[in-house]
Amino acid sequence: MKTVCFGEIMLRLSPPGYGRIAEAKSFDAYYGGAEANVAVVLAQMGIKSVYVTRLPENELGNAAAGELRRWGVDTRHIVRGGERIGVYFYERGAGSRQPKVIYDRAGSAFAMSQPEDYDWDKILDGAGWLHFSGITPALGENLIKVCKSAISAAKDRGITVSCDVNYRRALWGADKAGEVMAGILPYADVCVINEEHAGLLFGIKEERPDDGIYLDASARVAQALSQQFGCGKVAVTIRRTLSADKSRFAAVLYDKASGSASCSKIYDLEIIERIGGGDAFCAGLIYALESCMPNDYAVQFAAAACAIKHSILGDFGAMPVAEIRALADGAGRSER
Amino acid sequence: MKTVCFGEIMLRLSPPGYGRIAEAKSFDAYYGGAEANVAVVLAQMGIKSVYVTRLPENELGNAAAGELRRWGVDTRHIVRGGERIGVYFYERGAGSRQPKVIYDRAGSAFAMSQPEDYDWDKILDGAGWLHFSGITPALGENLIKVCKSAISAAKDRGITVSCDVNYRRALWGADKAGEVMAGILPYADVCVINEEHAGLLFGIKEERPDDGIYLDASARVAQALSQQFGCGKVAVTIRRTLSADKSRFAAVLYDKASGSASCSKIYDLEIIERIGGGDAFCAGLIYALESCMPNDYAVQFAAAACAIKHSILGDFGAMPVAEIRALADGAGRSER
Amino acid sequence: MKTVCFGEIMLRLSPPGYGRIAEAKSFDAYYGGAEANVAVVLAQMGIKSVYVTRLPENELGNAAAGELRRWGVDTRHIVRGGERIGVYFYERGAGSRQPKVIYDRAGSAFAMSQPEDYDWDKILDGAGWLHFSGITPALGENLIKVCKSAISAAKDRGITVSCDVNYRRALWGADKAGEVMAGILPYADVCVINEEHAGLLFGIKEERPDDGIYLDASARVAQALSQQFGCGKVAVTIRRTLSADKSRFAAVLYDKASGSASCSKIYDLEIIERIGGGDAFCAGLIYALESCMPNDYAVQFAAAACAIKHSILGDFGAMPVAEIRALADGAGRSER
Amino acid sequence: MKTVCFGEIMLRLSPPGYGRIAEAKSFDAYYGGAEANVAVVLAQMGIKSVYVTRLPENELGNAAAGELRRWGVDTRHIVRGGERIGVYFYERGAGSRQPKVIYDRAGSAFAMSQPEDYDWDKILDGAGWLHFSGITPALGENLIKVCKSAISAAKDRGITVSCDVNYRRALWGADKAGEVMAGILPYADVCVINEEHAGLLFGIKEERPDDGIYLDASARVAQALSQQFGCGKVAVTIRRTLSADKSRFAAVLYDKASGSASCSKIYDLEIIERIGGGDAFCAGLIYALESCMPNDYAVQFAAAACAIKHSILGDFGAMPVAEIRALADGAGRSER
Amino acid sequence: MKTVCFGEIMLRLSPPGYGRIAEAKSFDAYYGGAEANVAVVLAQMGIKSVYVTRLPENELGNAAAGELRRWGVDTRHIVRGGERIGVYFYERGAGSRQPKVIYDRAGSAFAMSQPEDYDWDKILDGAGWLHFSGITPALGENLIKVCKSAISAAKDRGITVSCDVNYRRALWGADKAGEVMAGILPYADVCVINEEHAGLLFGIKEERPDDGIYLDASARVAQALSQQFGCGKVAVTIRRTLSADKSRFAAVLYDKASGSASCSKIYDLEIIERIGGGDAFCAGLIYALESCMPNDYAVQFAAAACAIKHSILGDFGAMPVAEIRALADGAGRSER
Amino acid sequence: MKTVCFGEIMLRLSPPGYGRIAEAKSFDAYYGGAEANVAVVLAQMGIKSVYVTRLPENELGNAAAGELRRWGVDTRHIVRGGERIGVYFYERGAGSRQPKVIYDRAGSAFAMSQPEDYDWDKILDGAGWLHFSGITPALGENLIKVCKSAISAAKDRGITVSCDVNYRRALWGADKAGEVMAGILPYADVCVINEEHAGLLFGIKEERPDDGIYLDASARVAQALSQQFGCGKVAVTIRRTLSADKSRFAAVLYDKASGSASCSKIYDLEIIERIGGGDAFCAGLIYALESCMPNDYAVQFAAAACAIKHSILGDFGAMPVAEIRALADGAGRSER
Repeated sequence: MKTVCFGEIMLRLSPPGYGRIAEAKSFDAYYGGAEANVAVVLAQMGIKSVYVTRLPENELGNAAAGELRRWGVDTRHIVRGGERIGVYFYERGAGSRQPKVIYDRAGSAFAMSQPEDYDWDKILDGAGWLHFSGITPALGENLIKVCKSAISAAKDRGITVSCDVNYRRALWGADKAGEVMAGILPYADVCVINEEHAGLLFGIKEERPDDGIYLDASARVAQALSQQFGCGKVAVTIRRTLSADKSRFAAVLYDKASGSASCSKIYDLEIIERIGGGDAFCAGLIYALESCMPNDYAVQFAAAACAIKHSILGDFGAMPVAEIRALADGAGRSER
Repeated sequence: MKTVCFGEIMLRLSPPGYGRIAEAKSFDAYYGGAEANVAVVLAQMGIKSVYVTRLPENELGNAAAGELRRWGVDTRHIVRGGERIGVYFYERGAGSRQPKVIYDRAGSAFAMSQPEDYDWDKILDGAGWLHFSGITPALGENLIKVCKSAISAAKDRGITVSCDVNYRRALWGADKAGEVMAGILPYADVCVINEEHAGLLFGIKEERPDDGIYLDASARVAQALSQQFGCGKVAVTIRRTLSADKSRFAAVLYDKASGSASCSKIYDLEIIERIGGGDAFCAGLIYALESCMPNDYAVQFAAAACAIKHSILGDFGAMPVAEIRALADGAGRSER
Repeated sequence: MKTVCFGEIMLRLSPPGYGRIAEAKSFDAYYGGAEANVAVVLAQMGIKSVYVTRLPENELGNAAAGELRRWGVDTRHIVRGGERIGVYFYERGAGSRQPKVIYDRAGSAFAMSQPEDYDWDKILDGAGWLHFSGITPALGENLIKVCKSAISAAKDRGITVSCDVNYRRALWGADKAGEVMAGILPYADVCVINEEHAGLLFGIKEERPDDGIYLDASARVAQALSQQFGCGKVAVTIRRTLSADKSRFAAVLYDKASGSASCSKIYDLEIIERIGGGDAFCAGLIYALESCMPNDYAVQFAAAACAIKHSILGDFGAMPVAEIRALADGAGRSER
Repeated sequence: MKTVCFGEIMLRLSPPGYGRIAEAKSFDAYYGGAEANVAVVLAQMGIKSVYVTRLPENELGNAAAGELRRWGVDTRHIVRGGERIGVYFYERGAGSRQPKVIYDRAGSAFAMSQPEDYDWDKILDGAGWLHFSGITPALGENLIKVCKSAISAAKDRGITVSCDVNYRRALWGADKAGEVMAGILPYADVCVINEEHAGLLFGIKEERPDDGIYLDASARVAQALSQQFGCGKVAVTIRRTLSADKSRFAAVLYDKASGSASCSKIYDLEIIERIGGGDAFCAGLIYALESCMPNDYAVQFAAAACAIKHSILGDFGAMPVAEIRALADGAGRSER
Repeated sequence: MKTVCFGEIMLRLSPPGYGRIAEAKSFDAYYGGAEANVAVVLAQMGIKSVYVTRLPENELGNAAAGELRRWGVDTRHIVRGGERIGVYFYERGAGSRQPKVIYDRAGSAFAMSQPEDYDWDKILDGAGWLHFSGITPALGENLIKVCKSAISAAKDRGITVSCDVNYRRALWGADKAGEVMAGILPYADVCVINEEHAGLLFGIKEERPDDGIYLDASARVAQALSQQFGCGKVAVTIRRTLSADKSRFAAVLYDKASGSASCSKIYDLEIIERIGGGDAFCAGLIYALESCMPNDYAVQFAAAACAIKHSILGDFGAMPVAEIRALADGAGRSER
Repeated sequence: MKTVCFGEIMLRLSPPGYGRIAEAKSFDAYYGGAEANVAVVLAQMGIKSVYVTRLPENELGNAAAGELRRWGVDTRHIVRGGERIGVYFYERGAGSRQPKVIYDRAGSAFAMSQPEDYDWDKILDGAGWLHFSGITPALGENLIKVCKSAISAAKDRGITVSCDVNYRRALWGADKAGEVMAGILPYADVCVINEEHAGLLFGIKEERPDDGIYLDASARVAQALSQQFGCGKVAVTIRRTLSADKSRFAAVLYDKASGSASCSKIYDLEIIERIGGGDAFCAGLIYALESCMPNDYAVQFAAAACAIKHSILGDFGAMPVAEIRALADGAGRSER
């Protein structure tokens, strides 16, 4: 199914290995962005994946588009113009040292883009799915409008809409985010959200006795979100950071139609790469739902994609469906 | 004691660090092969180590021979000729992501070699030990013949023969392998085999209640192999993969003369390098037996060599005897 | 104009910088091949460029296709199958040290491909140009057949055919090459050939008083080729190697219709990369002719593309049309 | 003599070696800026060198200040604040391929700085020299004001002022630049300008018969500038680009007091690094004048510093005085 | 408070990543030394930090001083002279493979320095704290004298003196070290010592039932040291090596005035870098005491600095105070 | 012919590419030394090449021996012992920037070695040629004695002795060198010397009108040396440095028996590596004389080996005889 992802793509600059920004003599260059990462994983799964963004007319813009294309993403609907590509500097943490990020994305070609830059009739022609994340409306009022026109065009065509809430403190406050996303989620057929953000943005949280993972409680959060916003499917992801290199991860998927929730295994992850795990989860979920996998397996598949992504350097995380299935089916040994 | 190892040596190409073949911009180059790795470890232990193989007459062949020589291996009996060096691409796994290998070894100078390429009278002159692995006969009927003429020449001279069964699914089926190896092992004084392969190739296995390591059961496997093929010493190695970066390892050594088995410690290994661990075990065992270490210590020494090899990048694994002894003696802290 | 290029694409492994194969600890990895290089340069010029080849179903095959796609080449007609990707090792020369190449391409997925692997009706649908080089028929009788069916399908559709003779001593003898190419060139509308090869393959050469560049003589060679094979346009390239890092280059273009020849400037080139220069010339010429540039400018444009390619690392040589024009127009300072 | 340099310092990102921005997998990181480069060269010559700029309060700002400090520059007067550090991407050219630059410096901490950010009384306390370039006023009206208050404070204290006109097309038009610089140069005791810019900005140029270097004509340009703006010393630099890797360079120094001009040797330069040559010239000139070298030697010394800088990677170009003297004295072999 | 650190600074050469000295094709270069590391961490915490050492007059000496300056250390009191910089080769261990060090420091500029090289009146002018480690007197009788004159000058000025016992088997025997340090510690206001060294050098040890960490016993060791040498504060650090990559760490701080001991948390450390942890502890402690943190927090702060340093490559370990506080306050997740 | 080379082998540390020692973050590691370089080139030419030196018993000593062995040199006569391996830091120059070297070789295992460390009877058993350079006696009186005992043992056995005068200002003065070498050269059958050193050490020089290469004058220098010291063959090398990257090179060979001199071509060299050129010349000459090439070809062959070495990174310079012949025969294009 032709699947359209929409959002920013940035140049990421990271010191090699365990190096630090403060003393870097070189930076490894990656291109990535929440929705772009989803588009790449989908394309590598064999989905006809289209990315929509706005990039400047220079070599960095060319490179960003080229990297997407390399992984099979259709870049013909990328708009060119604007002054600069958004940049972020990311330093991997280790042990007791936390990761660091410096965003330098203000004024990017995408952040400056306007509703009239995107011809949704043309873009969505023949599409079956539209995906974006909460980072896009966080970039400004112009992008809230763009999101709304995209959703509206999708709804007109009966296209399934998925939204990863993906709240980013660095971009907007929880109040503003909660208000804007509450206006958007009612149009989303599928909603993905981090358990903690459900509390922060919408006040939806469940008590847990300690810092463990309680899938029942998370399932109730998913159900509450589905009831509040009417989304047909709500996936809640749960992450506990154990150190800069280790975390624990699981997810639940609530299905409004059946009123039931499905849970993934709980993964203990060694983190080679922290970025893009949530995006791989979204891609896994979209693939699973487009492939009509049953809910129980869909959440396992999405969680396995997320687990594997933690071992792949870079924002993108192309991986074969067969490897995801193998892990979801239990061949993987890192499950708890 | 002059020790002759015999087999292929290939060019290995691996993406640096955690990189992936699918997006590699460069490959680290190593030379290695099961028996070549044994020859290198032996040479660095001070053994007069000779390697026999066939390499093409080009810079890659020169480099393979040069790398062996660098570590002290005698390369004067390497035959030159043929079209190409065997190549394999190897991608290190990490966490939930499994390692990947692409073999491109068909038609290699060694795989195309014929019995008449090797003058065993000259090669084995003055030697006390001959070692090879099951990978060599797996390369074709011509190499089964080569193995047989090597063994026969060794037996004529009273040279000790060791064979690492080293079954590789990518090269031949378990039936064929079982049949060929069953014809070879009766001539081996020392046999090394992975516990799982004893079951696959020869149907020799013991029940275990779970996926743990049960040294008693493994000892019974070793004993059964000794009985079936008449080998004086049979070492069985046991490996449990915990993740792409972690495994558990132990070994037992059965001694036919005394009818008793010796067990190594059980190691929990952090894996920097997966390749060459079994070869380091063989080298450790050969060194131990050539040095007349008692069986109890010999298996500890071989297992310690194997453990240390997991922390050394590349196929080869030169390491000082003193370090192996220190770990075998318990100074090492990674034992369980 | 949709332009179809057809040929092999190989993995090239080169020691970094001035390193040598005989002591390389790593190899930089590039993908390339004569016709693939043309396809990439064309795609970056804005031409709808399609590449047709056969690649194995593994990560190396994926990477080769991905790299083409990255630069905008349409890879949907690439056939997947076969055992291996062709590989070549290439060591850059320097000063008095000549470059070295080790081919390891026998048995590649492409070399093993058969006429029935390619559905020319589908591939050429909507195309206006077909390009290939003499390397393709050099790979075997099966590929001579493939070439012929491609040409025949093209001719049926009125598609322009260009052929770069690109004679390679390592692949076939001059006699065989001359015979086969003499059977193919009559179907080529545009022929590109190195001056020296015109002599070797077809006995067409002109006396020159010394090792200088004599464009008049080269023009007569072009004319003779046009007369012999009936090609509408014949481009002859002239290269004099001054050292491993320096060469002199020029080209002439003979136009059968007007019976006149056009000459490029003579370039003194500092060589950062020796590979792909002739392919950039072909791409420049195809672009020029598709754009209906006059012959005088077409040969300047193609020669400028060739000159710039010598400063771009890797087989591919994507470069903006504006930069080529600037050099062709004389802004470049490296002309003689 | 305490020497204060004032201007921006940026993060420069360059693909390694001959790599291109469009396909870079990593960028080498340098910090630099016209006046910062001068400050570093001066500090390494033993001058008490102070740098004044504004940097953001993050790791990139820390790194920029740290790099200056590393080379001995006093960074205690650097103001911290603002949103981002200016960035530029720079790709080295080669042969027929021109260098490329992408500026991403809008909105930098320095470009946003205001006159009240700098306490010139404190900064200039004890100083004997103030240096800046025309890049600083090019950044906006606020920085024109900052320049003027710096000059005014310097003049009040009898501090020598030097200004490198350093016209940059990417920042402002020649008309605006000419107008602003014409208002600043009358306060400069020492003016450095590229011959070509003297024509572009102030219409001061001399006929030359061809593209050669005519030091007499250049001397007349210097004299005319001195007369127009009243500068005590005017240095005119002359550069002819031969290819991306080669240029020819010379300079003249006009001394108003004596009414005479001194000329440097003409250098044929192999370019390892194009950036910072003019800044090394300025530093050499400041050092020479602070050391009371005679004019004839001062211009030789400054030109030699410039020549050596072309062989040092990175924006900064620390080099020992003894090496500069050796080249100026003729030991250098690259003079024409 | 102006804090003076005094000792050697060496060039460290380490194979990249998990590489080994025996096959290194390149070495990463760091500069470091016990007291230099302290000086860098202090400077980055905002302390006015001065380093005193002796370095040769060559590029390596310049680089060592430059690296200190880069991180904000005042290098104006570094003496220049002597023949060479001390060098050490360090190979990171992994898993079962122990780290390796080759010292090549004999005859270094610092080791050859004499009391008259250092003008303590000038150096200590305005200082409030003097720090050095037991490595300095271990370098020879001349350096014992230098230490004594430094201490004596400090005591005359009422400057606080801290000493990290830092016993190194490779430099001197425990008897000699015990004797010399027993003559120095009575002048130290603050003493830092590894628990094991207290036993080896001074016979001060407490029974522990096993290889665990017993903070009570360690506190008694600290108290005994305070009683024996009269130091106002004694910090005892406790380290248990679990593997080449993992250790457990804690510390106690005994305060003579109150007669009470404070304990840090126990950290389980993943080791990216083994070197400089103890130095970061000293810097943390000095900062804490200069900032008048209560003892309970001072030891937590120092231990957190030590923990974070284990994740920073290189000898130096600049880190922001805020990050240390966050870990000391419990935000860190790697505490046991 | 078994050929014994005798001298030091050091660890060389060079910043990568055009980097500088003063800011190096890593050093490329090479092992080399004048006579070791000769041994390696000879071994790769197929000569049975033996190296004699003294190396410390540590990983660096192992690596030095291993690198020799890698290229086929017999290392069984290397003595192990002493404190350290000699080290030198070498920075490649570029354009106007001169190369830099920092020697740190005092107290090396070899420099501290004594006559009794070497058993020349055993070492020279079966040998036909002994080679060393003037660097060895420059290391101290002990090494003058070692040289003398080696020469004496060689003379007793009728072994040909060659000596490369190889004067190094950094090691000893011209007077001392002249005196010592004048005592050694009478025992040398073959002497190689740089034209300039003949003047400096022995006052043997010829007038030349300018800085050009005058082979007649150089031939008279060779003849005078032959007459003064009685050497059967004297090779004089002539080098003119044009820039840090370019030099001109030629050589003459005087044959005492025939009283005639032979001259090589004059090479204009692009310098990738400055080190080891003279050593490659020596190796070429030894090979040529051992192979009984006529004098006219011998000097061409040796000069061609020297020319090619300038394009090979590292001290060693293994190269195939066929490539040297091709250049000597004129296929090379870099001759003048």
